[in-house]
Amino acid sequence: MDRPTYTLVRDVMFFDTDIGGVVHNLAYLRLIEEARTQLAFLMGMDLKEMSSFSVFPVLLKTEVSYLKPATLGDCLRIEGCLSSLDRVRFFCDFIVYRQSDSAELVKCRQALAIVKMPEGRPQRLPKEWIEQWS
Amino acid sequence: MDRPTYTLVRDVMFFDTDIGGVVHNLAYLRLIEEARTQLAFLMGMDLKEMSSFSVFPVLLKTEVSYLKPATLGDCLRIEGCLSSLDRVRFFCDFIVYRQSDSAELVKCRQALAIVKMPEGRPQRLPKEWIEQWS
Amino acid sequence: MDRPTYTLVRDVMFFDTDIGGVVHNLAYLRLIEEARTQLAFLMGMDLKEMSSFSVFPVLLKTEVSYLKPATLGDCLRIEGCLSSLDRVRFFCDFIVYRQSDSAELVKCRQALAIVKMPEGRPQRLPKEWIEQWS
Amino acid sequence: MDRPTYTLVRDVMFFDTDIGGVVHNLAYLRLIEEARTQLAFLMGMDLKEMSSFSVFPVLLKTEVSYLKPATLGDCLRIEGCLSSLDRVRFFCDFIVYRQSDSAELVKCRQALAIVKMPEGRPQRLPKEWIEQWS
Repeated sequence: MDRPTYTLVRDVMFFDTDIGGVVHNLAYLRLIEEARTQLAFLMGMDLKEMSSFSVFPVLLKTEVSYLKPATLGDCLRIEGCLSSLDRVRFFCDFIVYRQSDSAELVKCRQALAIVKMPEGRPQRLPKEWIEQWS
Repeated sequence: MDRPTYTLVRDVMFFDTDIGGVVHNLAYLRLIEEARTQLAFLMGMDLKEMSSFSVFPVLLKTEVSYLKPATLGDCLRIEGCLSSLDRVRFFCDFIVYRQSDSAELVKCRQALAIVKMPEGRPQRLPKEWIEQWS
Repeated sequence: MDRPTYTLVRDVMFFDTDIGGVVHNLAYLRLIEEARTQLAFLMGMDLKEMSSFSVFPVLLKTEVSYLKPATLGDCLRIEGCLSSLDRVRFFCDFIVYRQSDSAELVKCRQALAIVKMPEGRPQRLPKEWIEQWS
Repeated sequence: MDRPTYTLVRDVMFFDTDIGGVVHNLAYLRLIEEARTQLAFLMGMDLKEMSSFSVFPVLLKTEVSYLKPATLGDCLRIEGCLSSLDRVRFFCDFIVYRQSDSAELVKCRQALAIVKMPEGRPQRLPKEWIEQWS
């Protein structure tokens, strides 16, 4: 079965920019968080129910490269996908594009685990995930 | 007894500014949050212990006026105080100054309550607060 | 002519919540900023062009009341409108609803001006705005 | 000459935490930004003057690993240093510690350049930097 993908489209806001006249590096990561949360819904995670059991998807690692700047007036397209998984970790890839010309602005890879809080114990990933997507 | 006051001093960061070349309106409110949290510690609130009982200071209302802009290179001084209280609400006032010339940049008044979550039930304020500060 | 309105719909994200288990007060204001920016586009402001002339819509005042909390799993609907204007200021009203039951969570009124930076000089509002919407 | 280092100490705020009961991944990066900006001042960058010439330190890449969670009530110590540089890029390393027991919570490496905006052209790094710190 195809691995889940999600596309988020967002206009650049004033609070996304800084005095340099371009989008601030943290703003891209907030948008990537938003895309990853929607991806989690698609993967079948019910975050409200999980949080009632104190189980959460937790970020282990982010690698992000800033290639070209966006600015006010631009529309951003964030494409995210589940790229691979092992027994306790899963990996997502994101590319942020400028919608008007599909220029690649930001590339990002993240590693995550499903963790029981507050102990911080990683859970084994669901069997169905491994069957469907590994 | 004198009502508690707190002064926070912070340099303007890139992420505080926007493409307009000045500090974004939300950034001042984040700094005011920081000053108010330190004020809460001074008033004797142990936020870690309170959160273990799901009891939190909760914002009911904010009124904020933006008078003059700050920019990168400025240092901000946020002066906060407990200004008044009744049985269930307390009120804090904040002024954000530019440190170099003490120009008033932002004025803010906030109303808060102590609330038990997730029910959202406001608690009566501690008797000592009312005795000392009303 | 009817005054412009805009409705923004957003799922609650992890970064919108805090340890209290509910949406943090600053997160609502970020969403209100997003609704107001879309409202600005509808009113005919070309923010990219304006910023090339260093002319920006600037917030003068915010009054916001927090009525009920939202949490992870909720979807928020932010309804914004231009409510009135005079020669140099315009006023916008926002209500944040929980999408599932239309409960009113947050009410907000903001006053704005169109300002030439970095001098900070307010401009007279466009004649068409006053003719159409006052 | 020793390469510049900077230590930032900050209490965890409500807005740094999320419904999982721990500090959100983006909050650490905001604190690392703050430490890096102070490091820039130490390295002799006058950000206000640079921004008047539209010259800015720009982030090219971030690698960040989340090792252990912090929570409300914790105090964080962010230690940053200039770790290496070549003709156009410089690299900074950061570790976020819990102040109480010096547990390592987050490790981060960032690559930066000095860029002329809006063209996005990287400048050669100052000769003194290379003489002193390479």
